[in-house]
Amino acid sequence: MTDAPRRRGRPARKAAEDGPVARERILAAARAEFAAAGYDRTSVRGIAKAAGVDPALVHHYFGSKDDVFAAAIEVGFEPALAVSAVVGAGPEGVGERLARFFLGLWEDPAARGPLLAVIRSAMTNEAAATVLRGFVLRRLLERVAAELDVPDPRFRAELAASHMVGIAMLRYVIQVEPLASADPERIVTLVAPALQRYLTDPDPEPAPDPTPEPDPAP
Amino acid sequence: MTDAPRRRGRPARKAAEDGPVARERILAAARAEFAAAGYDRTSVRGIAKAAGVDPALVHHYFGSKDDVFAAAIEVGFEPALAVSAVVGAGPEGVGERLARFFLGLWEDPAARGPLLAVIRSAMTNEAAATVLRGFVLRRLLERVAAELDVPDPRFRAELAASHMVGIAMLRYVIQVEPLASADPERIVTLVAPALQRYLTDPDPEPAPDPTPEPDPAP
Repeated sequence: MTDAPRRRGRPARKAAEDGPVARERILAAARAEFAAAGYDRTSVRGIAKAAGVDPALVHHYFGSKDDVFAAAIEVGFEPALAVSAVVGAGPEGVGERLARFFLGLWEDPAARGPLLAVIRSAMTNEAAATVLRGFVLRRLLERVAAELDVPDPRFRAELAASHMVGIAMLRYVIQVEPLASADPERIVTLVAPALQRYLTDPDPEPAPDPTPEPDPAP
Repeated sequence: MTDAPRRRGRPARKAAEDGPVARERILAAARAEFAAAGYDRTSVRGIAKAAGVDPALVHHYFGSKDDVFAAAIEVGFEPALAVSAVVGAGPEGVGERLARFFLGLWEDPAARGPLLAVIRSAMTNEAAATVLRGFVLRRLLERVAAELDVPDPRFRAELAASHMVGIAMLRYVIQVEPLASADPERIVTLVAPALQRYLTDPDPEPAPDPTPEPDPAP
């Protein structure tokens, strides 16, 4: 009966042996709780109950509710971290590879749920937004920016990310047609050139003054 | 004392005379309530109280809570409807004009609040998402699409919209740096070419097979 309820306090020898397994179980429970109830209505106690462990064990492994949320984000976004490999494979075709990778992630129902949960929480709760901002900055955008050979690579990575986040909003959250039902490859074809430009091209010239140029051939 | 509390029931002669004014006051109250409390926690009764009118008058002018929400969205997005004039002024420079118009809207604190309120409500409440979807489809994207001379203009309008919605998310909601503090004109310069392409260019060729082309000049 290894699943007998634990008592409050420092985890016993058995729990220490179970460490990695219990940690994974807590994380899975946290993802499910945050996804179902949102950040505000999720508690460490509720996560512990869903994982079948004592709340003290949650605190032992993760610390505060924000820390559990950050860890759940990292796990939820784990597949997204492969993006740096996608970008790092070289400039040719990187826009197309990135668009396909990103849409593939969202088309996978197992990944979409946690992504939606995180974005919803960040939209409506400042603490969750701060955690997401920290994670996105520290893990995701920095990795991508490190692979780019453009001016101000972090800004460029954010512009590319903003386009993909917006597509996710309109396609998967608000579900505007025809975007919501469009074939993913159709979206890839249209969006890839914009991403390619952000990730590989020099800065465009600022728009010229609207003074008409002299007509070269009257 | 024209502001004496009204009694329940059909609006009296005085209220009918006050009609347009009372309607505006209810709408302003609805925008403020939805912005402050979100869709779920806003009620027709609360809107009526904030507007200083009987709930029956809210029902008289608008109908259900969804109907008030739709009307509040329309007013909140009223400035955004000018987008069709921005797009309709012709294809040259339309991407730049659109990016500047959109960022100008969000940079205006008076407009940003209602826009954020609508997006937050739609992110977390299916009824609000349905109302926004109906409005966005019917009023905003259709108008823009009608001005475009491209294949599948609605899809193109949505791709441009998705980019701008994503920028709003990262810059104003999650507030990722350096995007959150970037000069708006810098964003316009970078983003304009992507919007221009969606709004004016023919479909790009789908990506070719990754078979290398024969070298034309050995």
